[in-house]
Amino acid sequence: MSDSQLADIGLIGLAVMGQNLILNMNDKGFKVCAFNRTTSKVDRFLENEAKGTNVIGAHSIEELCSKLKTPRRIILLVKAGPAVDDFISQLEPHLEKGDIIIDGGNSHYPDSIRRCKELESKGLLFVGSGVSGGEEGARNGPSLMPGGSDAAWPHIKEIFQKTAAQAYGEPCCDWVGQTGSGHYVKMVHNGIEYGDMQLIAETYDILKRGLGLEHAEIADIFSKWQDGVLNSFLIEITRDILRFNDTDGVPMVDKILDVAGQKGTGKWTAINALDLGMPVTLIGEAVFARCLSSLKEERVRASKVIAAPAKQPFQGDKQQFIDDLMQGLYASKIISYAQGFMLMREAAKVYNWTLNNAGIAAMWRGGCIIKSVFLSDITAAYRENPELESLLTSPFFLKAISQAQPGWRRVVAQSTLWGIPIPAFTTALSFFDGYRTETLPANLIQAQRDFFGAHTFRVRPGMENDHMKAGEDIHVKWTANSGDVSSSTYNA
Amino acid sequence: MSDSQLADIGLIGLAVMGQNLILNMNDKGFKVCAFNRTTSKVDRFLENEAKGTNVIGAHSIEELCSKLKTPRRIILLVKAGPAVDDFISQLEPHLEKGDIIIDGGNSHYPDSIRRCKELESKGLLFVGSGVSGGEEGARNGPSLMPGGSDAAWPHIKEIFQKTAAQAYGEPCCDWVGQTGSGHYVKMVHNGIEYGDMQLIAETYDILKRGLGLEHAEIADIFSKWQDGVLNSFLIEITRDILRFNDTDGVPMVDKILDVAGQKGTGKWTAINALDLGMPVTLIGEAVFARCLSSLKEERVRASKVIAAPAKQPFQGDKQQFIDDLMQGLYASKIISYAQGFMLMREAAKVYNWTLNNAGIAAMWRGGCIIKSVFLSDITAAYRENPELESLLTSPFFLKAISQAQPGWRRVVAQSTLWGIPIPAFTTALSFFDGYRTETLPANLIQAQRDFFGAHTFRVRPGMENDHMKAGEDIHVKWTANSGDVSSSTYNA
Repeated sequence: MSDSQLADIGLIGLAVMGQNLILNMNDKGFKVCAFNRTTSKVDRFLENEAKGTNVIGAHSIEELCSKLKTPRRIILLVKAGPAVDDFISQLEPHLEKGDIIIDGGNSHYPDSIRRCKELESKGLLFVGSGVSGGEEGARNGPSLMPGGSDAAWPHIKEIFQKTAAQAYGEPCCDWVGQTGSGHYVKMVHNGIEYGDMQLIAETYDILKRGLGLEHAEIADIFSKWQDGVLNSFLIEITRDILRFNDTDGVPMVDKILDVAGQKGTGKWTAINALDLGMPVTLIGEAVFARCLSSLKEERVRASKVIAAPAKQPFQGDKQQFIDDLMQGLYASKIISYAQGFMLMREAAKVYNWTLNNAGIAAMWRGGCIIKSVFLSDITAAYRENPELESLLTSPFFLKAISQAQPGWRRVVAQSTLWGIPIPAFTTALSFFDGYRTETLPANLIQAQRDFFGAHTFRVRPGMENDHMKAGEDIHVKWTANSGDVSSSTYNA
Repeated sequence: MSDSQLADIGLIGLAVMGQNLILNMNDKGFKVCAFNRTTSKVDRFLENEAKGTNVIGAHSIEELCSKLKTPRRIILLVKAGPAVDDFISQLEPHLEKGDIIIDGGNSHYPDSIRRCKELESKGLLFVGSGVSGGEEGARNGPSLMPGGSDAAWPHIKEIFQKTAAQAYGEPCCDWVGQTGSGHYVKMVHNGIEYGDMQLIAETYDILKRGLGLEHAEIADIFSKWQDGVLNSFLIEITRDILRFNDTDGVPMVDKILDVAGQKGTGKWTAINALDLGMPVTLIGEAVFARCLSSLKEERVRASKVIAAPAKQPFQGDKQQFIDDLMQGLYASKIISYAQGFMLMREAAKVYNWTLNNAGIAAMWRGGCIIKSVFLSDITAAYRENPELESLLTSPFFLKAISQAQPGWRRVVAQSTLWGIPIPAFTTALSFFDGYRTETLPANLIQAQRDFFGAHTFRVRPGMENDHMKAGEDIHVKWTANSGDVSSSTYNA
């Protein structure tokens, strides 16, 4: 086989994402060799979707590796978990030093950290790449978030940056960082996606059950919002979904069961936030909201015995309320992204990565599910001040959220009285109010912990005295029975 | 050494919890042999706190084991983690078949599952026991939640049940179940404790910053609530804490830094809830609230640049608002416990345990941090109907929460307008409103997932037609570009 007949890159896994990514790379001028565990799928793909393209196929791992230019570049787009390790093991005997295995699936970042270290110890290179954008993105330009062996980047940069979506004149792909950072950033992206979707769902519920609007009216509202600061892929498709009727004219969304899947990267983000001790509350609530949606039968039974609050028709100015709702959605979204970037800030410290906040925001501006004008505002905020502590204190978002505050509060208060569940809106507002509060009531919690468990506390600056010194763990004898010994066994 | 000189039980670990538990067991008529890694602590304990008691000491593991009746019963009260495995390894050579190692520390339940299986394979018995109640409880009667090797229970039952607190004429201790169930139930207990403390802290904040009350006035309110349905250890100590002044007359709580520790069993509960897919939102928010409290310096900086909402002095009926607040606290607490029992319901399925809901509630009625009249109401609800699906649909709590609803909503709405962060109150209300809602807006989320990722959805019952059949995974061609292939690789 002459070198010109060799493929630029191999791809394993011909589910919809893999097929579309191949066709996309082919369009950008790269020759791709396709492989799939069930090899009949390779033939079917070559005879149908890939007919007339430069895509070639392989019917074994060995054949795949023999048809690639060196250093070999092989993307796995298979189910996260053992299948990835399995294919890596199958590939290894057919690879040479410097070849690159790229995992483009939804792998959990600790697995990518492990795989990167293992493959590097064998002289191979590993890249764990977030691939976002669903089937549309894969076909027409996804957001790609590659991280792993630094030495791999020069060899995949051109393919990745040309295959990725382009937004604001830049590819939605750049090198993220070391070991598992690509999949980590993709995980946070997905968590944020969970949050965005939950916020839109709550907004829809407020418009539908609170204001009593029809689907067409709600679609018009989202359509109008699509022209402003909320402009984004998710608002756009929400508008389109709400206008999509079944063959009988009934809105399709009305026929869809209200049970949302919840296992995956949203859950991982929330667990990681708990592990790192960062208050990423909105993603947590979004995941839990999907859990609650899954308890459908239990909810149906509960709905028959638990009374709702008396229905109060809305008396105020509808348009004002809709504008308030837009502000509430916008402000809650700012909180969610601020939390997400706080989490990445902490992760970079803990996992020893150098993460470029502006670069990450820039990568998400196109090609992925959360693409939005909003992300170009975030990119600008971090480019303006790379050391920015929080999005909430950047000039742009500080002004935005300050303006949104009154309407946001009115919407939360009204929905609370209506009895419409808005866990993401409310946790966003609680976080905002907590974040901007110098003195939280955690002093009482510390007093309780010291009272019942001798857990000790620290003194407030300015309140030091001879028996309460700064920087010391202080235990008070709250009752005559309190011991003098402080707790060392428990940390409840 | 004659048998009468041998000790009934050995205890390793002389931090405050261990010391107090020894003195407690001694008071109940059991002879205890004390050991500690730093053996000088043994001598100091025997010469001081244990002076004049029947407690004996050991200066080596071997000596400890030689001074115990058989089957030997040895409680570890050491730091959770490697120290437990280390002491188990040290003990093993000196033990005989049928001897019992009891881990009374805050071990994570998967470790207890592992240790139970390992020790049983060697002919030894293992018990992982939750021990709750802090130093006071350990001294005067804790809540004990033992689970593990069923064969161990007859040998430790008397010591455990006599050492435990007594409430409503019953010991606050019973056999929980297999392998790690004792520590699991203790973990959930601690998560609930986090929730209770956060709810009280938010209540305190509303009274202090919302109504502008002084600490003495707030103490009087908690004192009044202590006479009603909220009667509990935590309300009692909150009252006492608020009345406790430093030597200069300033309320002690005002001098305590508002940074609450958050690593521990509360976090584990929230992570487990995410893993099992159960919406235990209130504990999640309570843990995140502690995380946010820890970002003290960041909050101080934020407080200087982010404006609070304009302060509106409270115009309504103060006493009515305080009553509403009590109802809100009560209702939120009902939600938290309902979520906790939902989690245990799912855990029993997943880990194959038989958990007795009524028994668990009964064990928590005394001796522990969350002891309350409330738990006797839960005990009664589960004794009345052991098959109860949710606390929220038990006659007692259904009535309670229905009565609480209007006040609860008013408090949440008012605090939202004030700008006081109440993440636990609001997540409780959102959960309640979601739980009693037959149709949540998750249908829109499913539409979005199918739109961008071909993730498919199910049809709503009653909406089936020829192209949307019950029980099938349905994919819609939302746009002209949508493929026909449904997603099998991704589950975002």
